[in-house]
Amino acid sequence: MGEILDMQRNEAGIATALVVLRQRFGPRLETGQAMREQHGHTTTWLRNQPPDAVIFAQSTEEVQDIVRICSDHGVPIIPFGTGTSLEGHVNAPAGGITIDFSQMNKILAVHAEDMDVVIQPGVTRKALNTHLRDTGLFFPIDPGADASLGGMAATNASGTCAVRYGTMKDNVLALKAVMPSGEVVQTAARARKSSAGYDLTRLIIGSEGTLGLITELTLKLQGIPEATSAATCSFPSVEAACQAVIASFQYGLPLARIELLDTQYVKAINAYSHLTLPEETLLLLEFHGTQIGVTEQAEIFGEIARDVGGSGFTFTTKEEERTRLWQARHDAYWAGLQLRPGAKGISTDVCVPISRLADCVTGAQAKLEEMGLMGPIVGHVGDGNFHVILLIDVDAPGEVAMAKGFVGWLNDLAISMGGTCTGEHGIGQGKAPYLVRELGPAAIEMMSAIKRGVDPKNIFNPGKIWLS
Amino acid sequence: MGEILDMQRNEAGIATALVVLRQRFGPRLETGQAMREQHGHTTTWLRNQPPDAVIFAQSTEEVQDIVRICSDHGVPIIPFGTGTSLEGHVNAPAGGITIDFSQMNKILAVHAEDMDVVIQPGVTRKALNTHLRDTGLFFPIDPGADASLGGMAATNASGTCAVRYGTMKDNVLALKAVMPSGEVVQTAARARKSSAGYDLTRLIIGSEGTLGLITELTLKLQGIPEATSAATCSFPSVEAACQAVIASFQYGLPLARIELLDTQYVKAINAYSHLTLPEETLLLLEFHGTQIGVTEQAEIFGEIARDVGGSGFTFTTKEEERTRLWQARHDAYWAGLQLRPGAKGISTDVCVPISRLADCVTGAQAKLEEMGLMGPIVGHVGDGNFHVILLIDVDAPGEVAMAKGFVGWLNDLAISMGGTCTGEHGIGQGKAPYLVRELGPAAIEMMSAIKRGVDPKNIFNPGKIWLS
Repeated sequence: MGEILDMQRNEAGIATALVVLRQRFGPRLETGQAMREQHGHTTTWLRNQPPDAVIFAQSTEEVQDIVRICSDHGVPIIPFGTGTSLEGHVNAPAGGITIDFSQMNKILAVHAEDMDVVIQPGVTRKALNTHLRDTGLFFPIDPGADASLGGMAATNASGTCAVRYGTMKDNVLALKAVMPSGEVVQTAARARKSSAGYDLTRLIIGSEGTLGLITELTLKLQGIPEATSAATCSFPSVEAACQAVIASFQYGLPLARIELLDTQYVKAINAYSHLTLPEETLLLLEFHGTQIGVTEQAEIFGEIARDVGGSGFTFTTKEEERTRLWQARHDAYWAGLQLRPGAKGISTDVCVPISRLADCVTGAQAKLEEMGLMGPIVGHVGDGNFHVILLIDVDAPGEVAMAKGFVGWLNDLAISMGGTCTGEHGIGQGKAPYLVRELGPAAIEMMSAIKRGVDPKNIFNPGKIWLS
Repeated sequence: MGEILDMQRNEAGIATALVVLRQRFGPRLETGQAMREQHGHTTTWLRNQPPDAVIFAQSTEEVQDIVRICSDHGVPIIPFGTGTSLEGHVNAPAGGITIDFSQMNKILAVHAEDMDVVIQPGVTRKALNTHLRDTGLFFPIDPGADASLGGMAATNASGTCAVRYGTMKDNVLALKAVMPSGEVVQTAARARKSSAGYDLTRLIIGSEGTLGLITELTLKLQGIPEATSAATCSFPSVEAACQAVIASFQYGLPLARIELLDTQYVKAINAYSHLTLPEETLLLLEFHGTQIGVTEQAEIFGEIARDVGGSGFTFTTKEEERTRLWQARHDAYWAGLQLRPGAKGISTDVCVPISRLADCVTGAQAKLEEMGLMGPIVGHVGDGNFHVILLIDVDAPGEVAMAKGFVGWLNDLAISMGGTCTGEHGIGQGKAPYLVRELGPAAIEMMSAIKRGVDPKNIFNPGKIWLS
């Protein structure tokens, strides 16, 4: 972290490709420093590695042209959505051309009866849901940021609703993607399920731009539930909160959202959002269903919570109260930063089997205390995924080194518990060493074999996932 | 169909490998004709292409040994579970060694709090659910046959519960698989979600034994619902039944099962199972939830059905009545065969966007009538997937040719509607020409690139998915 390497640059190839691309795209080939640095910006403490140029693509055909030119000259291509990735995915460690997809933002078809939608990759999730509002349908993946759906697919984003609706892998029916050869692959038909050959859809999802450049997505939609209710409940410990979640799943409660905030975060949110939540471990919940169903779900959860020591259980079906509670969750990142003004918030992303979650969270809390680091914790507890938001002065080398030590320690702890170093942010630049510890060298070799087969020149987003 | 080709045999390699394998496995290397033919048996009209030998593997290490020996000598390996595949997946068109996984049938760990289970590939779904009975958990994928879970993963099986619980892709957390190199890959951690590199789990699922030999599976489990209710409803047309299904989804009803039977099938089932269902298009439904929830769901569905002309809606929460209704569905294959005693039932497997399902089913019915073929229809209508069970005298060449024409016509119709030639059975030997029509040559080239990268000698189940 903070020490990412530059890779060998193919200077001659890049120079030639820039000439050819300028002939093809004219002033749309942008090479200004501010533009290039903006596209290397990583929202982390990873330093900026800007590309040599940026092109705002407007069609699949333009993407194909860029790929063919770059392939001819061995030049890297980095796809860019909204730049909200947290692991350096948009950096250009070997230089090259960034394709910005923000102008490919059309909604191509809404199939209401089939409950799916066909879109270009630059459509953001909020824009999509605004467009869908009149159909009674919505797209349920909410990673917090208003990310582009192409980028969300590339990193297999998920977020607060994953416990009910799954991740991007569960909500993309098909992709159109440009391959390193310049050919366009349609990964699947629009049918709800298929056993037709290798699952190219899910292979490209989460491949972080290293296998194909997504130029079209067919997404599953959900019916907007008849009723939604929200609830909060405080717990004497992280263990008790986790026990309530486990019991709820075993009961079969279809929780739509279930977020854990640790005591430190509750304090921060109380201060930032002017709330008076008990300063204990908190679960924030949402239930989707029929009017009768959401009330029944909330009541059952309330009983389960009380059995394990939960208190202050309150729930509401009123829109404005619900919004206020969940606004607090969405403001959590900013509230956390107020705990240490001037600090940068760096997020971990481990995910463990839920039986180990309490141990992992309390282990992290103890380690933070031992190291003297400040790191409030928020978790998508239904998935076993939580984020320590390390509040770091990134200009203090000693502090950065300590934080780095903590992140590595936590990744290894999660892996030792049968978990993963990344539940939803991806590997990017920083986590490659943990990927091999997590899955072993044979899995990495299989991934490498796939990459070599599909992208033999290693021009699609090099330096990500692997340290290659 | 019926005309599958033999592939070039590597006679010298096979002979040498047999010698080496006999040294390693002694009498456990089985070469008797009956044993070999049983393992090439395909439950279809595809002719038998037996392997040269069969080994009942007992451990991952034994599978590794077989793979290394076969790899050294360029000999094909075909994995075998229970032999219930419908597309010739277990045939050995180039000869080679079949690995029978039926003795690798241990349940290795049940993690009740995490709601997952770790098993060997030879465990069948019924054996798994019997084992789980005391835990309050179950594995929801039900393809009808009591298939092995390794085989179900290899073909991405689904069946009647997929509308609620998804396919194998949605219910496998991780796999252990032996690669063509002999190395063992662990595809993922046991966490509920992950963005850690390429999704090797879902790449191997549905790859039909061509990329890796599954030797361990970690499966998601579900809580046995507090209440289950079943319902039947008759409709004046396939269109009306499909409209009821579409409206139910848009309403957000979490239907657990929803099966369509055409008039011909209803007649067959009435005769076979001694029922008196109205001889119209029938929907058979199941609802899972709380006591209040399943009643509410059934009532809402009943209203929706009446709005589109449904009649005779009945539902029950009584176990014995439920079992009787669903037994009729499970007996459908045998009931259908009684429509033409002595005939073989050959199943199609198209899956289309649900808005096109009524057109596709009625188109198929009209075509069957025009061609004079008998083919009752049963559908997993919530997924848009249906099966025409062609009742064919496989010894009458003219009839086989007609049936072949029908299957091709139906596959192309589904593809023209944005659908797939296989919703759940896989490509196997027969459907390779339709795969390329469905996804185009660029997708096939990407699949081929992956295959070449992972299995450069093409020793894992050659002649499947591609005509190679």
